[in-house]
Amino acid sequence: MTWLDVPHDSAFGVANLPYGVFRREGQTARVGVRVGDHVLDLAGALGDDVFDRPSLNAFLAQGGRRWREVRSRVQELLTDPAHRDRVEPVLYPLAGVELLLPFEVADYVDFYASEQHATNLGRMFRPGGEPLTPNWKHLPIGYHGRAGTVVVSGTPVARPSGQRKAPDDPAPTVGPSRRLDIEAEVGFVVGVESRLGQRVPVTDFAEHVFGVCLVNDWSARDLQAWEYVPLGPFLGKSFATSVSPWVVPLDALRHARVAPPPRDPEPLPYLHDAEDWGLDLRLEVRLNGHVVSRPPFASMYWTAAQMLAHLTVNGASLRTGDLYASGTVSGPERDQFGSLIELAWGGQTPIELPGGETRVFLEDGDEVTITGTAPGPDGTRIGFGEVTGRILPTP
Amino acid sequence: MTWLDVPHDSAFGVANLPYGVFRREGQTARVGVRVGDHVLDLAGALGDDVFDRPSLNAFLAQGGRRWREVRSRVQELLTDPAHRDRVEPVLYPLAGVELLLPFEVADYVDFYASEQHATNLGRMFRPGGEPLTPNWKHLPIGYHGRAGTVVVSGTPVARPSGQRKAPDDPAPTVGPSRRLDIEAEVGFVVGVESRLGQRVPVTDFAEHVFGVCLVNDWSARDLQAWEYVPLGPFLGKSFATSVSPWVVPLDALRHARVAPPPRDPEPLPYLHDAEDWGLDLRLEVRLNGHVVSRPPFASMYWTAAQMLAHLTVNGASLRTGDLYASGTVSGPERDQFGSLIELAWGGQTPIELPGGETRVFLEDGDEVTITGTAPGPDGTRIGFGEVTGRILPTP
Repeated sequence: MTWLDVPHDSAFGVANLPYGVFRREGQTARVGVRVGDHVLDLAGALGDDVFDRPSLNAFLAQGGRRWREVRSRVQELLTDPAHRDRVEPVLYPLAGVELLLPFEVADYVDFYASEQHATNLGRMFRPGGEPLTPNWKHLPIGYHGRAGTVVVSGTPVARPSGQRKAPDDPAPTVGPSRRLDIEAEVGFVVGVESRLGQRVPVTDFAEHVFGVCLVNDWSARDLQAWEYVPLGPFLGKSFATSVSPWVVPLDALRHARVAPPPRDPEPLPYLHDAEDWGLDLRLEVRLNGHVVSRPPFASMYWTAAQMLAHLTVNGASLRTGDLYASGTVSGPERDQFGSLIELAWGGQTPIELPGGETRVFLEDGDEVTITGTAPGPDGTRIGFGEVTGRILPTP
Repeated sequence: MTWLDVPHDSAFGVANLPYGVFRREGQTARVGVRVGDHVLDLAGALGDDVFDRPSLNAFLAQGGRRWREVRSRVQELLTDPAHRDRVEPVLYPLAGVELLLPFEVADYVDFYASEQHATNLGRMFRPGGEPLTPNWKHLPIGYHGRAGTVVVSGTPVARPSGQRKAPDDPAPTVGPSRRLDIEAEVGFVVGVESRLGQRVPVTDFAEHVFGVCLVNDWSARDLQAWEYVPLGPFLGKSFATSVSPWVVPLDALRHARVAPPPRDPEPLPYLHDAEDWGLDLRLEVRLNGHVVSRPPFASMYWTAAQMLAHLTVNGASLRTGDLYASGTVSGPERDQFGSLIELAWGGQTPIELPGGETRVFLEDGDEVTITGTAPGPDGTRIGFGEVTGRILPTP
């Protein structure tokens, strides 16, 4: 229990303590920890200049022992009233600070780890065929995205232009995307680098990965459909990827760990689960304030530990700030799908919004917000905050 | 003509002056310019601490006016004997310095811009079908690669492991790649960033791109073949990408500019050539010292200016240090193919090396070196140096 005025059932109590980067007016950006509706200035509270920086990266690079030290010191500062006088002056109301991109993204990889999502897309795009490609159950499929266009929640997203060509069009045209979509995903932030040529086994997941954030992988389906054979998505994705401002440490997710779903066939040995790294994160997707989906992350076929083992099995090195995302989180029920193309089934069942409005894809001015929580101790919840963005017309 | 002892026909005379990062024993890394077989310490020669850094990025960010100022000042220092006494002490023989990765790679994109290469691969992988995908002549196909595993020439490359499955195998297995290949490419280094949401037209290519290097995009064909449908190459490429230590400024390539090949159909307006940005770079690929190919860059279907316009047409922003590569350079003749899989036609015509050895793919211990030159003034050549790497066994 903290001496701060935070309700016991807050999703941002001392069992959570996610990290971000904030700026007060006229001040430089610094690392902070969220508690309740406040942010604790870590440089101010701990007197360590690793936090007096505009990104988490220097702290992330310090590794697990240090992450745990800082977490337990912050918990002590916030629970022992003896520290109150010293800590209160460096606690700022969230309403008065600006939240920035929490880390400098090194490489960004996006996976495709939801069986339901991959099956849904396979059914829509290859009707009559096998919905999953032959490799899907043998490896977590992934590809590199554009690190330089990862933006923090709240950044407006301009509708991208590009080439699109429907199957019946005689030739491609260029113009604003007409099939602008979202993908509700969960992101994993690498702290500790690895050496080139050396794989990271599934057992070492928590030594390298610091924490978890929410991701909206905005997707222009028409651009993507025309460009992606044979080398994969490019401009259909690279215009923007939004992340939540808070990175929840793995240490706050102990109560969220669950067994992953059964796999058939048995994965190759380098992908064997060593521990349960399924995570019972519950996402919620709102379109213009209206809940349109509740994707369950626990249903993901591949865990984040398996994704990391796969990403490095060829000897590719990790850097501090690497971000990898899960791919769209879609559960088995229709109201659990993590993208509009699935929710509206490519236009066959438009999404109904209050006031008689419907959507198949995003319109200019639409706002999408993804939130998430996970189980915490004693029936509480661990909050992830939100990742939100509004669509602007093509400039 | 320089006062240095550099032959008039040197590929590294004052018409070239490529930039790199070097380190003398016991010293910190600094930016230098190559002239003949020497490197000029720019911080020492110009007294500007933008060069007293371990990467070119700070200088690249300064933009075209500054790039031209520095180039012309360096040319003056090296040609006017009045500067000799001051400059000679900060000129070091290349043999005594270590060359490092010349810039911090922000995002890395790889294109697929050689019609001959795409056709060759289409013929091998989809016999009987159309060798080019329907989008190929409408847009420069590209995808993001792993920026964190871009390494400088000379870095050994460990043979990657991963999943491979031949069509007849009942299930995938994991192990060292058996089809390890090269791709001889040309890379373009972005200096000046662009704003998110704002496209960079073909006309602005030279305002954003600083210069050109050589790239070897090492490729594990067996890993790639099993993983790449539907989201593109991932582990088949991400273990290493080698670049030459010298970045040749666009300003040194005026005599290399040529008209690109005719395009049919006419590209969409945003891809119209504004100026001729075809480049008559001649590459040479050596395997264990033996020339196996001479790929002509002038044959590329898409220019680097078109690639940049396409990369940003959706509003994706550029950052200083972005690297984009052309894709394998393959000319129409068999001895002009830029990858082993083309040269050996997938195993049908093994490459013959002196001493009766043959190769289809790379063996442990093999060394691949790619060099390149372009036309300079008065019949001289502009040298790119080399990108080289030796294959080590899987650790």
